[in-house]
Parts: sequence; C-alpha cells; structure tokens
Amino acid sequence: MTIPAGYSQTKLFDPFEIYVGPVFEEGDKGSKRFAFRVDERHVNKRGVVHGGMMLTFADAAIGQAVWDFTDRVPSVTMNMQAQFIDGARLGDLVEVKPELVRKTRALVFVRGDFTTSGRTLMTISSVWKLLGET
Amino acid sequence: MTIPAGYSQTKLFDPFEIYVGPVFEEGDKGSKRFAFRVDERHVNKRGVVHGGMMLTFADAAIGQAVWDFTDRVPSVTMNMQAQFIDGARLGDLVEVKPELVRKTRALVFVRGDFTTSGRTLMTISSVWKLLGET
Repeated sequence: MTIPAGYSQTKLFDPFEIYVGPVFEEGDKGSKRFAFRVDERHVNKRGVVHGGMMLTFADAAIGQAVWDFTDRVPSVTMNMQAQFIDGARLGDLVEVKPELVRKTRALVFVRGDFTTSGRTLMTISSVWKLLGET
Repeated sequence: MTIPAGYSQTKLFDPFEIYVGPVFEEGDKGSKRFAFRVDERHVNKRGVVHGGMMLTFADAAIGQAVWDFTDRVPSVTMNMQAQFIDGARLGDLVEVKPELVRKTRALVFVRGDFTTSGRTLMTISSVWKLLGET
C-alpha cells in the first residue's frame, strides 16, 4: 500500500471501513480532502469501481468531515442521495473534499463531488444527526 | 457460514460483492427476497451495521432484481436515495424484497424497504440505466 503524494493515512475506527480501506487525507481540519485507491477488491466484474465501495467511501469521508465540522460530536447518517456520473477503474485515486452546507444544533448538511484526475464520478448530498446527550 | 432457513446463496460476480458477501435469496424470479447476515466485518465501532455495508447490499440486491425484472439486460446504477431509520446489529439477518416501480426502454425505477425481524432499517429509491446496444 503506497500513500498518495501529499496525503497521510486516515485513522479508521469502524471495522467495515478498516476492511475496505485504507483511506487517506490531506489538508487542515474542517477542509480536508479524502481519497482511496481503487484496488482489486473494490471493482465490479467490468473492472469499474463498485457503487457500494463509492458509497462506503462517501460515508467514511463525510463522517470524518462531520466529526471535524462539529469539533468531535458523534453523529449518524440520516440520509444520503447519490448521483452516479462516471466510473473509476483499477488504480485510480478517488478524491472528495466534503463541503459543509449547514449546521444546526441537531443536524449537519453536507455535500461532496467525488473525482478522479479531475473527472467527476459521483455527487453526494447527505444529512447527519448529531448524537446529543438526550 | 450458515445459509438462513428458506434461502439459497446468490451467485455473485462482482469482486466487491464477493469480498463483503455472501448474499442469500429466496422466492421466484422477479419477486425475490435478498438477505445478508451482519458479521464482524460489517459493523461500525458501536457494533451497528455500517451504512456503507447497507448501501453495498442495496446496490447488490437491487442490481440482481433489475437483472430479473428486465430478463437479463445489463444495467448501471444512476442514483440512489437512502433513508437510514434504524440499525441492525451483529448476527441480525438484513432482508429486502426490491419492488419494481416503473420500467421504460432505458430506465428501471426500483424501491426497497430493508428490515431485520420485521423492523425497518433503511428505505431506498433508485434509478438504473439499461445498457443498450447503442
């Protein structure tokens, strides 16, 4: 496993993310970019990255971003809307820089454009519920 | 790996589905129910099934259903809208019976309610593009 130039490895805690990872990140807290490299595990039978892996990476990267946006408040995914636009292939680096759309006391609204070499693969819009003390 | 009562194992072709599977199915073509058993690989650090695994199972099960609905026309996921309602835990059997909403010459509209022991975990609405000869 080679770490992409400029990136460091993201510390993952969820067994499913560790199982399909690694994930990489670069940049400052609140404006990080995340990435994964498409390998033999991640593809469909046509050699294109599987939609499930794209959505798993989305959930992982957006979860990390929400953690940073809220200064470490635990949260859960409420919904996710994904548009599949183009496919990445074996060896491609898939990147996203999640954007904070709105944060309320209980909710975080996020979006992200997923790209490889500047080509858009998927766009995501997602709402996360912050887990308060109540 | 124990096959749930009444189910048989689904033949998977995509490496990513094989990596996170197995998947099971029961019923007749066009009205099959699909399932997977939550194991140690599939969870987050709280022992709840990871959203990425739910979405991967959704993509796999709906893809199989579209294959049946269209009598074996290859297709790709165009979009997926997921509402996360409740969590499954280690050992739970997650089930879905994808429903055909509409089929046109180029598109298939599908929805599905994902449950465990009758409790709703996630609802999905998804559009698939049929890959024609053009």
